[in-house]
Amino acid sequence: MASHEIETLTQALSRLPGLGPRSARRAVLHLLKKRETAFDPLLAALASVRERLATCGICGNVDTSDPCAICADPRRDARALCVVEEVSDLWALDRARLFPGRFHVLGGRLSALEGIRPEDLAIDSLIRRIAAGGIDEVVLAMNATLEGQTTAHFIAERIEGYPVRVTQLAHGLPVGGELDYLDEGTLAQALRARRPVA
Amino acid sequence: MASHEIETLTQALSRLPGLGPRSARRAVLHLLKKRETAFDPLLAALASVRERLATCGICGNVDTSDPCAICADPRRDARALCVVEEVSDLWALDRARLFPGRFHVLGGRLSALEGIRPEDLAIDSLIRRIAAGGIDEVVLAMNATLEGQTTAHFIAERIEGYPVRVTQLAHGLPVGGELDYLDEGTLAQALRARRPVA
Repeated sequence: MASHEIETLTQALSRLPGLGPRSARRAVLHLLKKRETAFDPLLAALASVRERLATCGICGNVDTSDPCAICADPRRDARALCVVEEVSDLWALDRARLFPGRFHVLGGRLSALEGIRPEDLAIDSLIRRIAAGGIDEVVLAMNATLEGQTTAHFIAERIEGYPVRVTQLAHGLPVGGELDYLDEGTLAQALRARRPVA
Repeated sequence: MASHEIETLTQALSRLPGLGPRSARRAVLHLLKKRETAFDPLLAALASVRERLATCGICGNVDTSDPCAICADPRRDARALCVVEEVSDLWALDRARLFPGRFHVLGGRLSALEGIRPEDLAIDSLIRRIAAGGIDEVVLAMNATLEGQTTAHFIAERIEGYPVRVTQLAHGLPVGGELDYLDEGTLAQALRARRPVA
């Protein structure tokens, strides 16, 4: 069988989301075969990221610098702030390059079930950023789940009184969505938020 | 967007078989979040394997020692030799722990289409191992493909004259195979190789 070291590597890879034991083994074989073109670049990339890895002290993004590239970018609109649950949400929104402002990562969502309370999330630091001024709009970009929406409502209440516009992402039909295949909740939201035809 | 280093890491991961751009990004986020429990173990495992990586000079297996753990294991039956196309085949057979002997990796299969000729495979070294004596049986464990079987026939001819028994893996119904779902080729093989009920 494969050596202890190769077995350890296979196990480390198999713990990545999207890779099971089988595909981890295939990935290891691929790495072992392509030492110069796959193994070495991956090892170098991991080492390079690990060395510089930092959590942004302003927004909570994970990057190779602190402040992160987004907070440090002077071309970003500092007056618009988008609040998200997780770093992955920040990345998803930023990948689409649709939001020109900055972000704030809560680090989760309120959850009675999991015992996650307001003080477990980066809500105080969010309020401090808003209280410091210079922000016109806060976009609450929580997930369209019960917990996400509860979190959004909680934050909206905490922000009340500050001179900012608080908005949230629209809910409704996803692009390409066929009514026949959508769940009732989405249909109800889309109907409730219906708009006049332009 | 993510920094240059994180982007490079995402790309390196996305080139692994089984991971696309999306799942590579998810994997990177997972690594960034779980630095102690995921990132560091993976980095250490990769570095440890890379340092020791070797191709076995006897059988062609990839391992962290040369000779590999299988060739160096005195409990292995040196009289039985299983010939496979790729290292991945060796691992698949050895994982099942059904073959008590040693292996020989050809490094591919004969292919007119891809221009792979006998001298491109580790056939000469196989003949030398057989000629050196001490081997009773050679199991040709090529894939059940046209090219695999062509390779098996070619090797069987080259081995003729040496005092070894040459066998190959049985072809037929896979375990759990339902006739209704199997291809005609498999059914034909199973019918041709039918055996008396014990």
